[in-house]
Amino acid sequence: MQIVMGLSGGMDSVTLLGLLLEQGYHVHCCLFYYGSKHNKWENKAARKIVDFYRQYDRPITANFVNLAEAMDSFQSNLLQSGGEIPEGHYTEESMHQTVVPSRNLIMASIMAGMAESIGAQKIALGVHSGDHFIYPDCRTEFVKALDTTIFLSSDKQVEVITPLSNYDKTSILTAGYSCDPQVPYYLTRTCYKDQELSCGKCGSCTERLQAFRSIGKKDPIPYEMPLGVM
Amino acid sequence: MQIVMGLSGGMDSVTLLGLLLEQGYHVHCCLFYYGSKHNKWENKAARKIVDFYRQYDRPITANFVNLAEAMDSFQSNLLQSGGEIPEGHYTEESMHQTVVPSRNLIMASIMAGMAESIGAQKIALGVHSGDHFIYPDCRTEFVKALDTTIFLSSDKQVEVITPLSNYDKTSILTAGYSCDPQVPYYLTRTCYKDQELSCGKCGSCTERLQAFRSIGKKDPIPYEMPLGVM
Repeated sequence: MQIVMGLSGGMDSVTLLGLLLEQGYHVHCCLFYYGSKHNKWENKAARKIVDFYRQYDRPITANFVNLAEAMDSFQSNLLQSGGEIPEGHYTEESMHQTVVPSRNLIMASIMAGMAESIGAQKIALGVHSGDHFIYPDCRTEFVKALDTTIFLSSDKQVEVITPLSNYDKTSILTAGYSCDPQVPYYLTRTCYKDQELSCGKCGSCTERLQAFRSIGKKDPIPYEMPLGVM
Repeated sequence: MQIVMGLSGGMDSVTLLGLLLEQGYHVHCCLFYYGSKHNKWENKAARKIVDFYRQYDRPITANFVNLAEAMDSFQSNLLQSGGEIPEGHYTEESMHQTVVPSRNLIMASIMAGMAESIGAQKIALGVHSGDHFIYPDCRTEFVKALDTTIFLSSDKQVEVITPLSNYDKTSILTAGYSCDPQVPYYLTRTCYKDQELSCGKCGSCTERLQAFRSIGKKDPIPYEMPLGVM
């Protein structure tokens, strides 16, 4: 059975991919480029992850989806056109600066069109219980409305599933390390900054590091400064 | 008050634009390019329509939204990658070949993101009572679900309106000719084929010509063959 998902290259989506492959799906991954500062690094990570699963002969296909031109007038500090990425633990204000209007809705719409085109009957979203309430397009009521909309838009062909909805960052990592092969977190990319080495300081890095600490493992990716210093 | 809409360059969207301007909106038009055969001709028409209203000093802004790369794997005979455009009055089968999966959902999602980015609280869709039931993304239940989804996705900032929902093609033309200035139908483009002159034979041309006949006016655009022959 085929399924379509967005593979950002971060720890949530790669875990979603690992779990879907374990469940026997043929997974079609959309690699979105929408002009965020960290997007090219995310896409690089995502390509490596696709290659990783191909080496294990897992049923995986992928396509690159360029939305940068379509979204180049959008306002967000996450985008290349926006201001600085805030550092440290998220506050409501700092996180609000990283909201990209309609992002999940746009990506899900493209995935739904892709699903119809290849004859897949499901798309999977990586929303999880650790998503912050400030992101309206991660909330349960949004996902429910989106599922209805996509179901109707596709003439009842495509539905939305959210396998991680009861997982937080800790249980996501636990689930990923239980997969066979283990989810390759060493290939993932979480940092919001436009630089090769992850900063370890933005809200996104801060949460990732906390998740690895919570399962008693060292985050396997390199950071700009030694982990002990952060 | 600002509003965002998609200006395809066809008779429905240009009438929607004319009516919104009459109602005092500052209208932001998205000109979508998604790789359909007739898209470049539509976009040309849409640009001329924007220029037309600017000459009348109407409050109108526009941006070009390139989705062709994002949708290049989609399956539809309407797309450059697809088969032949069917001719003659629509049948269920011929019309089904012209469905582009998720098209309205993707466009509305981009419009919603644009609305949030410029501080507009509404997006307008040109769906009307003459839309065919075979297009699932024109049906009332879809539009209602989409409105809910966009409202939630935008944290209750953006709503969807459909000013033409009670209009058919005939009343659309009647309304457009009653605007001041009259809606410039001579600048519009409806044909689904990839050629400068409209064919007058595809399902889309056939319906347009029928609408002009129904109000007793000659369609002001040139066709490939004299109207009497068709």
